[in-house]
Amino acid sequence: MSASWEHIAILGVGLIGGSIGQAVRHRSLAKRVVGLGRSPRQLEIARSLGAIDEGTTDLSHAVTGADLVIIATPVNRIIEQVRAVQQMVEPGALITDAGSTKSDIVRGCGEDRTDRATFIGGHPLAGGERSGVDAASPDLFEKRLVVLTPTPTTPANALARLTSFWRELGANPVEMSAEEHDRILAQTSHVPHCVASALAAATPAELLDFAATGWRDTTRVAAGDVGLWTEILKQNSVPIAEGLDAVRTQLQDMIEALRQCDWDRVTRLLQEGKQRRDALGS
Amino acid sequence: MSASWEHIAILGVGLIGGSIGQAVRHRSLAKRVVGLGRSPRQLEIARSLGAIDEGTTDLSHAVTGADLVIIATPVNRIIEQVRAVQQMVEPGALITDAGSTKSDIVRGCGEDRTDRATFIGGHPLAGGERSGVDAASPDLFEKRLVVLTPTPTTPANALARLTSFWRELGANPVEMSAEEHDRILAQTSHVPHCVASALAAATPAELLDFAATGWRDTTRVAAGDVGLWTEILKQNSVPIAEGLDAVRTQLQDMIEALRQCDWDRVTRLLQEGKQRRDALGS
Repeated sequence: MSASWEHIAILGVGLIGGSIGQAVRHRSLAKRVVGLGRSPRQLEIARSLGAIDEGTTDLSHAVTGADLVIIATPVNRIIEQVRAVQQMVEPGALITDAGSTKSDIVRGCGEDRTDRATFIGGHPLAGGERSGVDAASPDLFEKRLVVLTPTPTTPANALARLTSFWRELGANPVEMSAEEHDRILAQTSHVPHCVASALAAATPAELLDFAATGWRDTTRVAAGDVGLWTEILKQNSVPIAEGLDAVRTQLQDMIEALRQCDWDRVTRLLQEGKQRRDALGS
Repeated sequence: MSASWEHIAILGVGLIGGSIGQAVRHRSLAKRVVGLGRSPRQLEIARSLGAIDEGTTDLSHAVTGADLVIIATPVNRIIEQVRAVQQMVEPGALITDAGSTKSDIVRGCGEDRTDRATFIGGHPLAGGERSGVDAASPDLFEKRLVVLTPTPTTPANALARLTSFWRELGANPVEMSAEEHDRILAQTSHVPHCVASALAAATPAELLDFAATGWRDTTRVAAGDVGLWTEILKQNSVPIAEGLDAVRTQLQDMIEALRQCDWDRVTRLLQEGKQRRDALGS
């Protein structure tokens, strides 16, 4: 089997970028995988972990000649990087990202007649509380949803190529608008992060010795990188605030039920939560 | 080494009762471990898993001759069981429980001059979202806190015996009043349960396909048994409502910061949550 891509450039070789690199190299999908990073030492670790063939701190070196560029850096840096890469790649190259928000990015990278390459927004729903290339795995995307956010002017063949790319990594790509993506992810990812954080912050420090599994699980994601999460919340603040309001209303219902000793209502509220949780499985 | 106990009776052989039985038998701490249950089939499973030597559905048979009785049934059944066991055991026997709330239970089992046995409230901080004897493990209590709630009239030698019992199971027993236990556990266990439940209930069912690790972790405990949790919330409603109010205030702060585009405040709120979470470790 011949490789599907000549040269894949991965900008940001952390958990997501590193896992993409490992998955591509395990499956021999590219002749060459070049990683861009800021620290030569981290790039060397990425290379030793099989995530890239070659590491560089020079953007132009990383992307020149690339037919696929994947941007896996924090969300606030993606637009400028797409703009810069547009000037450097060969005509016909494909650019995508792995950012957790999509509306701002897709708007910021909107088509321009002078563009040499097509940008299509992407977001693999994979990861977890761990970060960094040390946590990378070539199977990270197996059976995971990857949201692709084409616009009405995205060329069909570019979208088809990106779709097969993710399928070859074992993922399940789905298409929707950037706005729909953000509305959904607010509920399923960004709101949970804020709720975990609020719960952690509301727990008096001196009681942490008594925190058992329940507290641990429920607050786990609150340990995520604050800078990264501030940028995510910034880019998706309206639907997140709405989603948090819905949780606040649920909490208010429970507080009232407890204060009124209305145990039937307490049971009903717990049942609603259990039913929704059970629908997902462990 | 001779066994520390002649006959330990375990009332309710689920995750906690079963793990106690396995831990006792692995360490040969008792000559005989008898389990009480409602289903002969479940008792047979418990026996085959090494949790008990013998199973019975008859309370009197389970506890007659026991020098230690451990009640690991749902919190709403503990008081009546302690009362019943008091009439059946030998003078000098020790009775304890593993319930997640303590004030009501300790009040309900208050000393009576006619008592033949000493009751001391207990709560091992172990478990998780799984339940049932299938999930039991002889190591469940290793390095875990076990709260014991003696009263001013608890005999010192009885407390010392119960303390060594838990130490022999690898646990770390600590003493406090039943009221203090309930105030602490409201924050570290009962409030997280309600928050996980509220978050799950507030997530539209049609978006669950997009729920990644964050949503899964943050809502995990919401899958817990509703009947059991209603009883826990009922017995500890006042401190739980207070704790939920603190979380609600934190959420309100985040909602305001997002709506006012006050990103410094968003960062500060996330930092508070991360700091508290990091203090615990994964």
